[in-house]
Amino acid sequence: MSTLLIKSGGAAGFVEWQRHFAELAPGLTTLFWDDATDADYALVWDPEPGRLAAMPSLRCIFGAGAGVDGITRDPDWPRHIPLVRMTPAGAAQRMAEYVGWAALHLIRGGRRMALQQARAAWEDFEHPSAPDIRVGIMGLGVMGARVAQVLRAMGFPVMGWSRSAKGMPGIAEFHGDAGLAAMLAQTDMLICLLPATAATRRILSAPLLAQLPRSAMLINAARGWHQELPDILAALDSGQLSQAVLDVFDPEPLPAESPAWAHPKLTVTPHVASLPSRRERAAFVAQQIAVLESGGTPAPLYDPEHGY
Amino acid sequence: MSTLLIKSGGAAGFVEWQRHFAELAPGLTTLFWDDATDADYALVWDPEPGRLAAMPSLRCIFGAGAGVDGITRDPDWPRHIPLVRMTPAGAAQRMAEYVGWAALHLIRGGRRMALQQARAAWEDFEHPSAPDIRVGIMGLGVMGARVAQVLRAMGFPVMGWSRSAKGMPGIAEFHGDAGLAAMLAQTDMLICLLPATAATRRILSAPLLAQLPRSAMLINAARGWHQELPDILAALDSGQLSQAVLDVFDPEPLPAESPAWAHPKLTVTPHVASLPSRRERAAFVAQQIAVLESGGTPAPLYDPEHGY
Repeated sequence: MSTLLIKSGGAAGFVEWQRHFAELAPGLTTLFWDDATDADYALVWDPEPGRLAAMPSLRCIFGAGAGVDGITRDPDWPRHIPLVRMTPAGAAQRMAEYVGWAALHLIRGGRRMALQQARAAWEDFEHPSAPDIRVGIMGLGVMGARVAQVLRAMGFPVMGWSRSAKGMPGIAEFHGDAGLAAMLAQTDMLICLLPATAATRRILSAPLLAQLPRSAMLINAARGWHQELPDILAALDSGQLSQAVLDVFDPEPLPAESPAWAHPKLTVTPHVASLPSRRERAAFVAQQIAVLESGGTPAPLYDPEHGY
Repeated sequence: MSTLLIKSGGAAGFVEWQRHFAELAPGLTTLFWDDATDADYALVWDPEPGRLAAMPSLRCIFGAGAGVDGITRDPDWPRHIPLVRMTPAGAAQRMAEYVGWAALHLIRGGRRMALQQARAAWEDFEHPSAPDIRVGIMGLGVMGARVAQVLRAMGFPVMGWSRSAKGMPGIAEFHGDAGLAAMLAQTDMLICLLPATAATRRILSAPLLAQLPRSAMLINAARGWHQELPDILAALDSGQLSQAVLDVFDPEPLPAESPAWAHPKLTVTPHVASLPSRRERAAFVAQQIAVLESGGTPAPLYDPEHGY
């Protein structure tokens, strides 16, 4: 009988995980992170450095989210063991729903309307329509691809910047540093869905924002790692950015005293862009373990060369 | 030289209309409603009763919005003159953007997140995904059809209720009273896009809301005419409705003392669902006048048999 050691959601979360795995993978024994030191598999978000390396039976690591930077920042994480990124089918769909909401929220002035509702003020205003707003997506992975598809169906012209060509119908693709500059120069709404790697740290800072047309809009649904929050607030104040939606911060939770909360042009959401239910995530892990135990290779695996 | 008499947006609006028509239809003379009593064409939202009937030269009336109830409520409106509903290409797209925003806002708890942001509170919560939420659209006209298409592309299962069959691919269609009951019984999110006719007055009231599954969601982007606001507030309080987005009220503006403004489960927007720019609307009217003057028939015309 195989064992799965879990560190995601604390003790309360563990009870939920245990319940789902009992139904989805009855042959699997689930163990709480605080109660055991070894297992066949680990399902973790941000393990203490060294803990994974000290597990002699470990055969596969499952990230609890699509990004595994909470695991790979451990200098001792066991690189010879496969690390699977959490990508249940529902995760890309949920990301597309969040970014779709944020994109329409920006063009329709959702933040402004919420502030008007708070003071019982009935004020209409002109706003653009999706076909007038050129969207540029940074990162066309599993999530970025579904986001691009949904935004295009909504009527936005969509561009994408990625490491390798994807050949997505109807999406103008850009690659490399020159490609990024070319895309930014014609991006009215920039969407960050990049992986958190050394190369993408604080990429959303003043020099990049200055390459956008004036009054551009910004959505970051990737990681707080990618953004220099003071630069974004300054761009909102100068008018270089007209509005932004940020789902991620560094650190999280966003401190209560941050000026971001009250900014009238900034919508803050609590890292919820792609939060598949625990049930969906448990089903994904159970399915991957079944693949492993029948001799197959789980996917998608973390790629150390590209850092995601 | 033809003349167009305008009552839409007051004196300030007239200056804008005049500027657009000067560019789009240089052969047309525009007249302000307060300064003239006759013209070849009238572009109006809510003319004083009797004024249109007293225009001897009038050949065509253009509604300033898609709904022409502000015109047909005049007991003396000249029924023998064609009445054109304002449907520039951008109007259905804008409606789809609004309803798409509202639908994602409901499933992602946009109102709850806005209230959290107001108190600098970082709190995530589970939420459904589009494929889990069965949408029922009341009204599959030009706007409803585009809304259905966009919601389907977002991943929602979509049903529609309309007078006549539309044959839209992928949309389950319902007709008649029995069809409405059948659709409501399986509708997790109800969207009202009906025309304002005698038959649809206050249709969104307690008896209809009671036919929805418990905790259903509601969007009204049609007219305040369609809703009994106290019934909607009561349904939100009882839990029969979990959340709602209302763009329209009766009367408008929504009075500052209305309990709707502060309701934590209700998002209020100021009748902006489909507000094509004045430029887009002027272009539509200029094009329709060109059709008329070359002997053609403008479209879409108000149909007195169906009341829209």
